[in-house]
Amino acid sequence: MTVSLDDVQRAAERIAGRVRRTPVIQVAPGLTFKLELLQHTGSFKPRGAFNRLLSAKESGELTGQGIVAASGGNHGLAAAYAARELGVPARIFVPVTTPAAKLDKLRTLDADVVQIGNEYAEAYQAALAAREESGAVLVHAYDQPEIVAGQGTVGLELLDQAGTFDTVLVAVGGGGLIAGIATALGDHAQVIGVEPAAAPTMNRALQAGRPTDGPVGGVAADSLGARRLGDLAFEAVQNHHVRSILVDDDSIVAARSELWHQYHLATEHGGATAYAALVSGAYKPTAGERVVVVVCGANTDPSTLT
Amino acid sequence: MTVSLDDVQRAAERIAGRVRRTPVIQVAPGLTFKLELLQHTGSFKPRGAFNRLLSAKESGELTGQGIVAASGGNHGLAAAYAARELGVPARIFVPVTTPAAKLDKLRTLDADVVQIGNEYAEAYQAALAAREESGAVLVHAYDQPEIVAGQGTVGLELLDQAGTFDTVLVAVGGGGLIAGIATALGDHAQVIGVEPAAAPTMNRALQAGRPTDGPVGGVAADSLGARRLGDLAFEAVQNHHVRSILVDDDSIVAARSELWHQYHLATEHGGATAYAALVSGAYKPTAGERVVVVVCGANTDPSTLT
Ligand SMILES: Cc1ncc(COP(=O)(O)O)c(C=O)c1O
Ligand SMILES: Cc1ncc(COP(=O)(O)O)c(C=O)c1O
Repeated sequence: MTVSLDDVQRAAERIAGRVRRTPVIQVAPGLTFKLELLQHTGSFKPRGAFNRLLSAKESGELTGQGIVAASGGNHGLAAAYAARELGVPARIFVPVTTPAAKLDKLRTLDADVVQIGNEYAEAYQAALAAREESGAVLVHAYDQPEIVAGQGTVGLELLDQAGTFDTVLVAVGGGGLIAGIATALGDHAQVIGVEPAAAPTMNRALQAGRPTDGPVGGVAADSLGARRLGDLAFEAVQNHHVRSILVDDDSIVAARSELWHQYHLATEHGGATAYAALVSGAYKPTAGERVVVVVCGANTDPSTLT
Repeated sequence: MTVSLDDVQRAAERIAGRVRRTPVIQVAPGLTFKLELLQHTGSFKPRGAFNRLLSAKESGELTGQGIVAASGGNHGLAAAYAARELGVPARIFVPVTTPAAKLDKLRTLDADVVQIGNEYAEAYQAALAAREESGAVLVHAYDQPEIVAGQGTVGLELLDQAGTFDTVLVAVGGGGLIAGIATALGDHAQVIGVEPAAAPTMNRALQAGRPTDGPVGGVAADSLGARRLGDLAFEAVQNHHVRSILVDDDSIVAARSELWHQYHLATEHGGATAYAALVSGAYKPTAGERVVVVVCGANTDPSTLT
């Protein structure tokens, strides 16, 4: 199954007015940030969530039973936000490891929050069971076509905002974001996935020739801690020749600190991971290469920034 | 003495490439933020500082003696940053009340930092004395034509970025920022000054018919705590019929909290003051009115955001 550029374009129309068109800022010659951390709920996730919910509404799948979702935090925030905007109930399953900064926000969004399991994959099993029981719409964190297409609208905006550019650096968890962006950009730019060495879902999938399960850990696990790459993402990153670059936790921490001190952006570790590829030198642009970094998550305890 | 649109346009040419073109984001229908907190050093102040230093360089006034400046913090950061970029020494006088978040950053910028007096006005006297002694260039925090013209480049960018808009809300300290923006915008939009009730320099000047000294206090004193409005600012706000709106400290605190929780922007109190006019209802836009809020300062201790 493949998500097409057409799917992304229809997602953009569907979610227009529901999500913020986040700005870009050129921070140095050849270096632009896409400020997707300024999206509703503090990450890009409402793009996919709204596309999924609005599609389900159009098809009649969305009923008074509302939605269920499993999430390390950001997807749950987005799904709960979208459900509230559309006036349907939301039940969100999160692992017990979800940080307080995310949990507290989730509770303000009128969602029914269930903490279960030690990582995303376990919360997901609970969400599946709840869906069976209730008939609610499952809003997957990354591996549904509407989710991938929704996240891809980040790429469409970039084409419109960032002039011409050569390379986009994108953090990878389950791969919904990078799959959508790669689909949206097509041949316009090379897309590079940046993954924590402690949770390298895409790297492992590319090596194995298919998504495989692996351990999940590191400082960014609450946002990038999927056990395996989504099937849709694998399809997309293969079609678009997306490469994977690994960064270690120290680089992610350094990138987050630099985003705060130099750029006045408060990011969570997952939101700083793409930038870590530059800070660490794991990705070295050539002279004159124009690079875009997607800064994709703000949900952090700000007292840990300094 | 009047600063002209032409002065602002020449400032924009002079400082191009030295300052960031900060983005705008439409956060709701009819409400746009100008994200000037993402400027180098975390406030709009480098615009004026670079314009002053580069002008002084052109005229030969800038020598190896470098610059002196007095500041509650942000102007000092900007002046020190600009001096370092241009390779001249900087001596920055700050009151002892300057918060650690600003002082720590100032020390990383190679400036000679002198803490003196309880408020900006006293640090300014010390800077004047140092200028007499050393022949360094004085970079005023708001009341020099090059400073006003430099800050006005925020307004030129807005004309280019924000489509048509009716109203711009701007925080006021000594008035350099609002004077520059009012000059840049001319008849394109009404400009409204938002001031802490605890430091209402412009309000007092408009009532008295001239800038007068007054007490300085409140949560935003470290950025908006000038004792009196600048003469250039008074001239500009009269010419452009700029109104003053007062907000109390509670509204500033609430606005700062909302900027963090709803918009993922880490601001200092002075940077949230313009938005406080909306949060408090002190300014009520009419139906369909398109409002721009200049979010102008990021230099805060992030642990105080929650
Ligand atoms: C801040 C942030 N960045 C990146 C990702 C990765 O997105 P995906 O799972 O679509 O690869 C997530 C997922 O939760 C996230 O929250
Ligand atoms: C964050 C911030 N906002 C607003 C102002 C007010 O600028 P002005 O003194 O030009 O009125 C300042 C001045 O330091 C500032 O630092």
